[in-house]
Amino acid sequence: MTIRRVTSPAAPEPPPERWSNCLVVDGIAYVSGMTARGADVKDLAGRDEYEQSKIIFTKIKGLIEAAGGAMSDVVKITVFVTEIANNTKVWQARREFFTGNFPASTLVEVSGLAAPEIKVEIEAIAHIGKGMR
Amino acid sequence: MTIRRVTSPAAPEPPPERWSNCLVVDGIAYVSGMTARGADVKDLAGRDEYEQSKIIFTKIKGLIEAAGGAMSDVVKITVFVTEIANNTKVWQARREFFTGNFPASTLVEVSGLAAPEIKVEIEAIAHIGKGMR
Amino acid sequence: MTIRRVTSPAAPEPPPERWSNCLVVDGIAYVSGMTARGADVKDLAGRDEYEQSKIIFTKIKGLIEAAGGAMSDVVKITVFVTEIANNTKVWQARREFFTGNFPASTLVEVSGLAAPEIKVEIEAIAHIGKGMR
Repeated sequence: MTIRRVTSPAAPEPPPERWSNCLVVDGIAYVSGMTARGADVKDLAGRDEYEQSKIIFTKIKGLIEAAGGAMSDVVKITVFVTEIANNTKVWQARREFFTGNFPASTLVEVSGLAAPEIKVEIEAIAHIGKGMR
Repeated sequence: MTIRRVTSPAAPEPPPERWSNCLVVDGIAYVSGMTARGADVKDLAGRDEYEQSKIIFTKIKGLIEAAGGAMSDVVKITVFVTEIANNTKVWQARREFFTGNFPASTLVEVSGLAAPEIKVEIEAIAHIGKGMR
Repeated sequence: MTIRRVTSPAAPEPPPERWSNCLVVDGIAYVSGMTARGADVKDLAGRDEYEQSKIIFTKIKGLIEAAGGAMSDVVKITVFVTEIANNTKVWQARREFFTGNFPASTLVEVSGLAAPEIKVEIEAIAHIGKGMR
């Protein structure tokens, strides 16, 4: 059983030779740090942490489901924000995607993400099929 | 075998719908980024990285032991500090909790943690029962 | 099967009671956040993100191979840089070490790394023997 790349229409893949959005091996899905950036980065300029996080969690959900799992399989997320004072906006979005035992989480403020409009980046680890259904 | 939430009196859980301090699945424990903050955040104001890290490692130890493991099962920690010049203070605390082969570690300086008094946040991954006894 | 420490001449180990560069357990290799720093930190002063990343990936490769694996086994890397505007220089180095499905990746800008000359720190997770050969 080799490492498998999982893709989803919910999360556009980068050009070749950059990274994979999601690799799955031994039943564990590793999801790259996802941002709300899509085809047009300008779209993000007016979107706050709540809106960006919703876009990000939708991407993560698409990838985890493409891997055969569900959001309840997510055991760990790491959240990087540019303004930690707005961390509750990330929490607000998170509540719309998880129930029961929320994933273990780390949330820190970094000095910069891939573009000035990007306020949030979230990565995830999931054990496919091991969450409560 | 589904994902199991592990709790410990050593590490107060957050309110519902935030995060889990520790989830265990497939023998792997994922511990959230822990801070020294307890019931009263004002307690932290006078505590340096050494003291905060000792509080944090005590929480992590409580969680790992509640999961049936020991600190020797910890394979990876990630340390976020607000002043990297004080990294040796984190090391000093770490030496009181590990022996033999220390965990793989990453330590970086971030621009902010959850509150101004918080100088350190540490997350951990442990493979329960796989460390040397 | 207990946690095993893996070392490589490619990546000098720190003094005792600091961290392990690489621990392997259950077929998973956890590699510490590696920097380009070697015996003489002054060497780094003139090296940009591309050159530092090449040194780092060479260390990671040495450790993964010492664990019995290959770079194709790497499923996740986390990259911490001090100037995100130079992220493409990290990508340039990464292209020299991976083929096919690149690892899941997170790249964020932090406010500081272990020394001013250090511009990049990279950690990795690999599932030994599970990448395509």
